[in-house]
Amino acid sequence: METAAPISERVSDVDAKHESGRQKIDWAREHMPILSALEDEFTAERPLSGEVVGMALHVEAKTAALVELLAEGGAEVAITGCNPLSTHDDVSVALDAHENITSYAEHGIDDTEYYEAIDAVIDHEPTITVDDGGDLVFRIHEEYPELVESIIGGTEETTTGVHRLRAMDADGALDYPMFNVNDTPMKHLFDNVHGTGESALANIAMTTNLSWAGKTVVVAGFGYCGRGVAKKARGQNAHVIVTEIDPRRALEAHMEGYEVTSMDDAAERGDVFVTTTGNRDVVTADHFEDMKDGVVLANAGHFDVEINLEDLRNLSVNEREVREGVQEYELADGSRVNVLAEGRLVNLASPVSLGHPVEVMDQSFGVQAVCVRELATHGDGYDDGLHDVPDALDREVAELKLDAEGIELDELTDVQREYMDSWQHGT
Amino acid sequence: METAAPISERVSDVDAKHESGRQKIDWAREHMPILSALEDEFTAERPLSGEVVGMALHVEAKTAALVELLAEGGAEVAITGCNPLSTHDDVSVALDAHENITSYAEHGIDDTEYYEAIDAVIDHEPTITVDDGGDLVFRIHEEYPELVESIIGGTEETTTGVHRLRAMDADGALDYPMFNVNDTPMKHLFDNVHGTGESALANIAMTTNLSWAGKTVVVAGFGYCGRGVAKKARGQNAHVIVTEIDPRRALEAHMEGYEVTSMDDAAERGDVFVTTTGNRDVVTADHFEDMKDGVVLANAGHFDVEINLEDLRNLSVNEREVREGVQEYELADGSRVNVLAEGRLVNLASPVSLGHPVEVMDQSFGVQAVCVRELATHGDGYDDGLHDVPDALDREVAELKLDAEGIELDELTDVQREYMDSWQHGT
Amino acid sequence: METAAPISERVSDVDAKHESGRQKIDWAREHMPILSALEDEFTAERPLSGEVVGMALHVEAKTAALVELLAEGGAEVAITGCNPLSTHDDVSVALDAHENITSYAEHGIDDTEYYEAIDAVIDHEPTITVDDGGDLVFRIHEEYPELVESIIGGTEETTTGVHRLRAMDADGALDYPMFNVNDTPMKHLFDNVHGTGESALANIAMTTNLSWAGKTVVVAGFGYCGRGVAKKARGQNAHVIVTEIDPRRALEAHMEGYEVTSMDDAAERGDVFVTTTGNRDVVTADHFEDMKDGVVLANAGHFDVEINLEDLRNLSVNEREVREGVQEYELADGSRVNVLAEGRLVNLASPVSLGHPVEVMDQSFGVQAVCVRELATHGDGYDDGLHDVPDALDREVAELKLDAEGIELDELTDVQREYMDSWQHGT
Amino acid sequence: METAAPISERVSDVDAKHESGRQKIDWAREHMPILSALEDEFTAERPLSGEVVGMALHVEAKTAALVELLAEGGAEVAITGCNPLSTHDDVSVALDAHENITSYAEHGIDDTEYYEAIDAVIDHEPTITVDDGGDLVFRIHEEYPELVESIIGGTEETTTGVHRLRAMDADGALDYPMFNVNDTPMKHLFDNVHGTGESALANIAMTTNLSWAGKTVVVAGFGYCGRGVAKKARGQNAHVIVTEIDPRRALEAHMEGYEVTSMDDAAERGDVFVTTTGNRDVVTADHFEDMKDGVVLANAGHFDVEINLEDLRNLSVNEREVREGVQEYELADGSRVNVLAEGRLVNLASPVSLGHPVEVMDQSFGVQAVCVRELATHGDGYDDGLHDVPDALDREVAELKLDAEGIELDELTDVQREYMDSWQHGT
Repeated sequence: METAAPISERVSDVDAKHESGRQKIDWAREHMPILSALEDEFTAERPLSGEVVGMALHVEAKTAALVELLAEGGAEVAITGCNPLSTHDDVSVALDAHENITSYAEHGIDDTEYYEAIDAVIDHEPTITVDDGGDLVFRIHEEYPELVESIIGGTEETTTGVHRLRAMDADGALDYPMFNVNDTPMKHLFDNVHGTGESALANIAMTTNLSWAGKTVVVAGFGYCGRGVAKKARGQNAHVIVTEIDPRRALEAHMEGYEVTSMDDAAERGDVFVTTTGNRDVVTADHFEDMKDGVVLANAGHFDVEINLEDLRNLSVNEREVREGVQEYELADGSRVNVLAEGRLVNLASPVSLGHPVEVMDQSFGVQAVCVRELATHGDGYDDGLHDVPDALDREVAELKLDAEGIELDELTDVQREYMDSWQHGT
Repeated sequence: METAAPISERVSDVDAKHESGRQKIDWAREHMPILSALEDEFTAERPLSGEVVGMALHVEAKTAALVELLAEGGAEVAITGCNPLSTHDDVSVALDAHENITSYAEHGIDDTEYYEAIDAVIDHEPTITVDDGGDLVFRIHEEYPELVESIIGGTEETTTGVHRLRAMDADGALDYPMFNVNDTPMKHLFDNVHGTGESALANIAMTTNLSWAGKTVVVAGFGYCGRGVAKKARGQNAHVIVTEIDPRRALEAHMEGYEVTSMDDAAERGDVFVTTTGNRDVVTADHFEDMKDGVVLANAGHFDVEINLEDLRNLSVNEREVREGVQEYELADGSRVNVLAEGRLVNLASPVSLGHPVEVMDQSFGVQAVCVRELATHGDGYDDGLHDVPDALDREVAELKLDAEGIELDELTDVQREYMDSWQHGT
Repeated sequence: METAAPISERVSDVDAKHESGRQKIDWAREHMPILSALEDEFTAERPLSGEVVGMALHVEAKTAALVELLAEGGAEVAITGCNPLSTHDDVSVALDAHENITSYAEHGIDDTEYYEAIDAVIDHEPTITVDDGGDLVFRIHEEYPELVESIIGGTEETTTGVHRLRAMDADGALDYPMFNVNDTPMKHLFDNVHGTGESALANIAMTTNLSWAGKTVVVAGFGYCGRGVAKKARGQNAHVIVTEIDPRRALEAHMEGYEVTSMDDAAERGDVFVTTTGNRDVVTADHFEDMKDGVVLANAGHFDVEINLEDLRNLSVNEREVREGVQEYELADGSRVNVLAEGRLVNLASPVSLGHPVEVMDQSFGVQAVCVRELATHGDGYDDGLHDVPDALDREVAELKLDAEGIELDELTDVQREYMDSWQHGT
Repeated sequence: METAAPISERVSDVDAKHESGRQKIDWAREHMPILSALEDEFTAERPLSGEVVGMALHVEAKTAALVELLAEGGAEVAITGCNPLSTHDDVSVALDAHENITSYAEHGIDDTEYYEAIDAVIDHEPTITVDDGGDLVFRIHEEYPELVESIIGGTEETTTGVHRLRAMDADGALDYPMFNVNDTPMKHLFDNVHGTGESALANIAMTTNLSWAGKTVVVAGFGYCGRGVAKKARGQNAHVIVTEIDPRRALEAHMEGYEVTSMDDAAERGDVFVTTTGNRDVVTADHFEDMKDGVVLANAGHFDVEINLEDLRNLSVNEREVREGVQEYELADGSRVNVLAEGRLVNLASPVSLGHPVEVMDQSFGVQAVCVRELATHGDGYDDGLHDVPDALDREVAELKLDAEGIELDELTDVQREYMDSWQHGT
């Protein structure tokens, strides 16, 4: 089978790319205190010595900080992208220049090349895999089952990937231990509430040149992402309306002081709509014609199914890109509906997007790094299948961040611990 | 065994008390939309017909609304207090005037009389018990085991009571089904965050005549109560410092924009301290001498052990009640430390306290009422022991509140439901 | 003319009153850092030596701190109340015990006695007057014009008093200099926004036992008081609707993220209404019948004319005090409207009211004290008539507060000062 | 004297530029409700018929909406840029295509060409001038004094321009009436608080890829801009520290719950610094060495003098552009200080900047438009010199915005008006 060559052998201007990529990675590392703390430990103790880490992630500056950390921990690392459009070639080149890292990731490659790059990573015979979407773990199971034996385990950090792994696991078809990084507290509490909340709003503002003050913002869904968007929008002096299908979440939103109503009712009142439900058909033909002229629609949920664009196109008499990243649909009555980023995740797909904030990835990648270390050092202890991240590891990452920020905790005295235990376990 | 007589036969000025109690109950019912909605249902369908409900609760206006609701649902109700100091005699008399209610609760009775009142309730041979602290369920198990057979089940809504029930259950000594109302979402999400948060602050303000704007408020603990207090204090323009022992909670507080530090460090910076940890010795001899002159200490956690008053007394050269509900301790260096409500739960024990807000009790009692209905109608389905409130019942109460407030929810279409299911359960 | 005797000669239980009053004053002084800082200065420098200060103020603990400060500054002080219902006899007795203070204030005296007390103060032949409402300055002008000559000047701190003084001044009938403390930044920026905002909400909560979370609160007027109430209500997780007559204020409220609409529209949506307009007939017959059952109305504006109670009575079929401080009006359709504190200023007139927060009065009285000092030391420099508080004095009080709180300011360098000057005055 | 030709005669690809410019203008107009409302009026009534409006403004989409509005009002319009770097050629071309508009603005022209373009505008013999910085009004006074006679008046909307006009006016050298649009409430209340606040934060986030949650943000200055930045940063869950030189502003910040301290003290605590003082040398050599490694500095005040870059360069051992728009300075101890947009106004000068939000310019340009109308219709009534915008015009713009948003105001009844008058003017 043909596999890809490292990026540095394929692209031009390697030196310029190296310099540019290096600069980007340096910026990220400067603002990733958790990875910096782990770097001290990994460099000193080399916990990954002897391991080969195969990775398929979005290859950009923040990811690179994780890749370099793993190499500093003693691993040989082979990496490729998990999406042909998300790779930054300069970052890929800069990684490839590292003695213990080989990068196969290249922007804009076709489907065949994409899998050749994955196969090239697999050719390194990884003992640990790090995935974003699951393409690496699936490829190994399907095409290289003979390698499974020598793999200690892996990590996966996306909803989509975990969804696929869970299905495999249910079928008894997941043949090595995988950590579900996606659902661990240190990821979703901060990534969703703060990361998505802030970056969705900043991307909408910087795509539209509109202001939040005085806007009526309709937030569909009051899960972690929705409450992040709602809270941050209120914090920019918007008036927030929440829609929900779950009565307790609706009541929580109500008790926070948000208006809560149905999308049918909210449709005519919103200036900006942000969907965060994870479901499809949240804004549909039932709503577009009721909307104000000039309304802005954006999606901050996983897939581009929350705003039903097919319905919108059917209702439209005219459609044009009125601004980069903004598609304007003119309805029969002359009113205009503007959809950002084609209804894809606005904080990642807007034309000005920088991806997730650095600190958010610091936390997620911090969990990845300690999970990889756990596999290298205690991997024997885990059965094949999907595992939650052990609570102690998740807490360790929280502690690293607090230390880095110089934040002091109180510590339980023995008397206090005993008092609490008596309450929690019964007398 | 001697049992108590109904309150109306024991106290003077029954008519005046009746009128005063009636007025208090009317106010509560006017502001309890969940109980009002259930009243319509219970009056029409009489789901409790034939049941005898024995109750031991704080007998005041809000509780009375629950008691009357159960009677309207067809039950015969016998009630007494769960604490001799929390009974309002006028409310007790007004309840006792109801055809299907007998009230034995009286303020200020001694220990013997307290148990005679409980025994009087048990004499009614309840088929369902409703507890606040567990005294009724324990008395039945200890003194009247022969009655257990005919009891369908019961409910308990306090941390203390659940703690005791959990111990009994672990010993196999809980002989009928009990619902744990204390830990159900509809209780703790709203009661702790909003109820405790708001009432702690209002009680502190109305006891001290001090303002929040510009104050540095140290909140010990960032659980549900702590985040309620922190959020509401910030909402009054205080500067909030949080102390924690748990790294993830500390990080959550930090990411909300609060300062987070140790109590040792916070001690010298706070103007007001509010403890919400549920633990003991949170503020101790290590801290008092560092505090600003005139500092105010209040506790919003369960017990009066969070502020170590013994330590404080040992350090003091002088102690006086400087204001109703405010004890001032003068330290050797002349600085003064003010403790509210003797370190007991400030929102319930301050001299101006009205107890929990009406709406909070509406939610808690709403859950109680549907649990009692569940026992009366489907009690056979539950084994002996402690049970979580069934999720459907908890959600029903949320829906009743939303209906009462006129809040509309969206409803899942079949296509949406299918889409979600495919995600949650794997394809 | 008959004048009153000092309070200590008129009331019983002088010793007990003294002790109780002393305790109240001590609490206030402990929390009035501006007056404490001035106390250090006044005690050392005695700037009021030789002056006689005549005062007519609400005689309660916070006022007493000002009175004692003036005495410590070297003045002989004579004081009486400015409203027969606001005097605390114990505080009055405690003041009267001071060597250089004579207090004539007594609770519940009739109109004749009220003026006899004022006359008793005037009998001391004050050289400086301190007023709250203007009764002292008017009495002097009307009945004792011969004393005007020897009066250096005075201060007045209420809207009502300033209103009357302005009219006198316009008629050329104000015969000595008066400082308008009411409109100085250090008073209205903090008193109205924070003092009124916080205390209105706390008094409403502690009178009704209701919670703010999820409530729709209609705030009539978006002046200083209105924005304080709106901001603090949002900070307790209420949903806030603002009504206004002024387009720019309305737009400011809108840009803060509040809903803005007419009272006609808001009437049916609010759970709680708080009027802060300073105008009459803000809530009238046009609105009561549209309101929700159980609605709560409170006034935080100067006079009891904002809620039109005559209209409400005309529409009612029944009226009763449903709770202390809460009058319930039942309309023909059975819905109930609850009015707090008879529509008077809810933060001062509610049954649980403690008056303005201590810190707010510290600022107002701080300005009073430096104004009195200014009159004693530079009184010659002011013409007869109403004067704004000199900006330097107002700023001095701000600086005293910052010093007391340990807050550091930056200081302009010469280069910076020159840079700013070049901008402000043109090159 | 040589003057410039219209842009369409100078640039290539006119058709493509026209289309692109048209699209940008359409987007702006879609979101400028005040200008839209005025368009209806201006189109119907043609109040500017017969006038020639000469303009020197930043020629981009939002400005274009104003230009077209004036043309629709009947004016002949000639426009050029007020800064060679701020012109969007496509917008300039699209404007130039309008029958009654001639645009001379071109991006990147040199100083000579810049003044040739201004002279070309003056060649149209404007009867009204609209300025942004004052270049047009000064050029006319200096080079074309003979035209002054026929000019009705003009408007100016920047701090810099007003500063220069004020100096001219003080010298008696301003020979026609000018409206000071910069200091009118509808501009500064919203532009500074909301416009600057939101766009500074969004630009910092989108330049750095950093998150606000948990950051310590030091805001220098608590004027309109500073309180906007502080409020919005807190609204993104940052911890905000304010520095000030003015005691009352410092106290206001303190009472809002912000930490207030000196820059010396804040230097070592901040993660991000935003200067908004309007003064120079706010962050200097005294501070850089105390700062955390990786700190981010941005300026949101007028000029690039607030962060002293000369000091910073002197302390640095290394300097590089670590990211587009981010200059990293490495100090002797290895710590890194990052300066955004070279210390220029970050919301306008960052690489991702879109300029002021559309709605903010809608308000400012709304005031410009009604001022131009006022000059055309009542210009005789104004003396030569600098004038405040008449309050009625400023209010009219507020009303237009409220109407456009569908926001209802209450209206004073005669009785209410009389009541208020009696208070405001004395009885």
